[in-house]
Amino acid sequence: MTMNAPKRTIVSVDAMGGDLGPAAVVAGLALSADKNPNIGFILHGNKPELEKLVARTKDLNEVCDIRHADEVVTMDDKPSYVMRNGQNTSMWSAIDAVRNGEADVVVSCGNTGALMLLSMVRLRKLPGVNRPAIACLWPSRNPAGFNVMLDVGADIRADDTDLLQYALMGASYARNGLGLARPRVGLLNVGTEEHKGRPELKSAHELIGDVAETANIDYIGFVEGGDIPSDRVDVIVTDGFTGNVALKTAEGTASLVSGLLRDAFNATILSKVSALLALSSLRRLSKRVDPRRNNGGVFLGLNGTVVKSHGSADAMGMSAAVKLAFRLAESGFNQKLAARVASAGTPSQDQKNKNPEGEQPA
Amino acid sequence: MTMNAPKRTIVSVDAMGGDLGPAAVVAGLALSADKNPNIGFILHGNKPELEKLVARTKDLNEVCDIRHADEVVTMDDKPSYVMRNGQNTSMWSAIDAVRNGEADVVVSCGNTGALMLLSMVRLRKLPGVNRPAIACLWPSRNPAGFNVMLDVGADIRADDTDLLQYALMGASYARNGLGLARPRVGLLNVGTEEHKGRPELKSAHELIGDVAETANIDYIGFVEGGDIPSDRVDVIVTDGFTGNVALKTAEGTASLVSGLLRDAFNATILSKVSALLALSSLRRLSKRVDPRRNNGGVFLGLNGTVVKSHGSADAMGMSAAVKLAFRLAESGFNQKLAARVASAGTPSQDQKNKNPEGEQPA
Repeated sequence: MTMNAPKRTIVSVDAMGGDLGPAAVVAGLALSADKNPNIGFILHGNKPELEKLVARTKDLNEVCDIRHADEVVTMDDKPSYVMRNGQNTSMWSAIDAVRNGEADVVVSCGNTGALMLLSMVRLRKLPGVNRPAIACLWPSRNPAGFNVMLDVGADIRADDTDLLQYALMGASYARNGLGLARPRVGLLNVGTEEHKGRPELKSAHELIGDVAETANIDYIGFVEGGDIPSDRVDVIVTDGFTGNVALKTAEGTASLVSGLLRDAFNATILSKVSALLALSSLRRLSKRVDPRRNNGGVFLGLNGTVVKSHGSADAMGMSAAVKLAFRLAESGFNQKLAARVASAGTPSQDQKNKNPEGEQPA
Repeated sequence: MTMNAPKRTIVSVDAMGGDLGPAAVVAGLALSADKNPNIGFILHGNKPELEKLVARTKDLNEVCDIRHADEVVTMDDKPSYVMRNGQNTSMWSAIDAVRNGEADVVVSCGNTGALMLLSMVRLRKLPGVNRPAIACLWPSRNPAGFNVMLDVGADIRADDTDLLQYALMGASYARNGLGLARPRVGLLNVGTEEHKGRPELKSAHELIGDVAETANIDYIGFVEGGDIPSDRVDVIVTDGFTGNVALKTAEGTASLVSGLLRDAFNATILSKVSALLALSSLRRLSKRVDPRRNNGGVFLGLNGTVVKSHGSADAMGMSAAVKLAFRLAESGFNQKLAARVASAGTPSQDQKNKNPEGEQPA
């Protein structure tokens, strides 16, 4: 019996969208290629520039296919403009490599709104999904070290059925991304009592409770903002407006606290000395919450997996996003998620027909 | 010329609602009375119990008037139940002392929903205010060290006119509570571009922009979650659902980071030693973000000032809430706020009549 070369998992990468330019993106791919022999890339952007950058790293050069794209989606471009006029952008080309079956997953650190809209238009929504969502990993007190939160910004609205689908999609992500067999799912609200909150939340609370058993999720009901980084819950479900505010508030708070910590250690000579001694402890902390090490929002609910890396991601951040993309592609995550949403569609419909008076229009 | 005793500012205190019971409340008042010779209290709750607690501290005994109330609002009581049946509770009695003009301000660490509803019913809304709001102080990179954020949970809804009033009320609070002559006001959204966000936010953006000059506020437009603890803004305006989630998320994040910091310092023997040396720096940090030192949400938009202390406030937390209540009462804050809202009512009405097609129904 002869050993064949392992089948590579191909990641399609938009090289042009990030704040730090293609050099940071390519440096990130080089880190990933160095660690992972089973990965391959299709790289989209300015070909002469990318060839020069890729040529610097032998390992990368061998697993990298470069596709030229004349244009770049900027952070200021309106998504609707990109949708109409973006055919020659690196982002469009990167998404189409998944659409055409050449790559298993796409990674971009470009304009989130444009990436979402292009992904929806080119990859299309999964059958049964009304609104796709962006899920992020959130440092927490969990055994896994991370919670999944969604939607963190795909859409500013979500009705009760959308929230149900977020629960199912988030649970699939937690199963395949975090290895949790039966994720604990919570619905974000301003109180944990059943009578509290917006009408769509009360209705979604019923819908998720009804499918929890068949969907193999442990539905724990309403959770509050303070529970997000706790050990109470693995998947936090909310609309994209609230989720986006919460995510950015948490990032702002973490950066405030670390800034104040720096101030505190700089206040006196003794504290400066103690900071030197505490250095390894502080590094251990910053490693734990460093957003570069868990970089990547994932778009859920499309025919294909899209990983959105942070706009300001450096090489390490990019490599983390690629690692996440690779893991999800390899686990066949998107097919499993599609099956999960499809199978839960029926009971939720039944439920609606049984109690039409208690429902919001979907 | 003879010196008269200074006129005391009277704080009405609900002694019974907190998680730690009346002993913690009375210990907090003792701290405040010790530091502030111009303060007096009307204390509401179980009279025999309170008399025993107050008698322990001579200074407090002299400035404390105790009013018996048979019943206590618990954390689980529904607000509507308390409104119908709460006449004999310490919370009701504490609010009525402001209603009757006996006290200048009320402090309670009881059930927030019940306190809000009772305050609205007994004190009534200010003329021109549709939805009162809860404002909190938020540790930030500001020169003042704190931002004002509202609404953090009075109402889960807010339309464009409500958000305009929150901007005016929050600016008044920043002027009188933080001493900022011309506060920078931002409207919380999921992006800073004008085309983003919910319809009521776009409309509120216009309304606030129109009155900014006459209301003497520096309106900086949309801000994101990450800006909340920054030096960009002094007053952050949002609806009570989003504000409550953001507040609790920030608290959860700060507690996660400090927990991880503790873990990091406990990881090895060397790190334990370095922690001992870093102790004073860490104390300096925790003093800066300690919620007990900036304890107290303020209800804005009522005929009277209500300070909601944290349910789990200890003596130091209670004393911080009392200090805030005293400062607001002494500055005549509520009268100034009422004048500000009343004077801004007219231009905003004019504006609405000029552009009726661009408006949501108020």
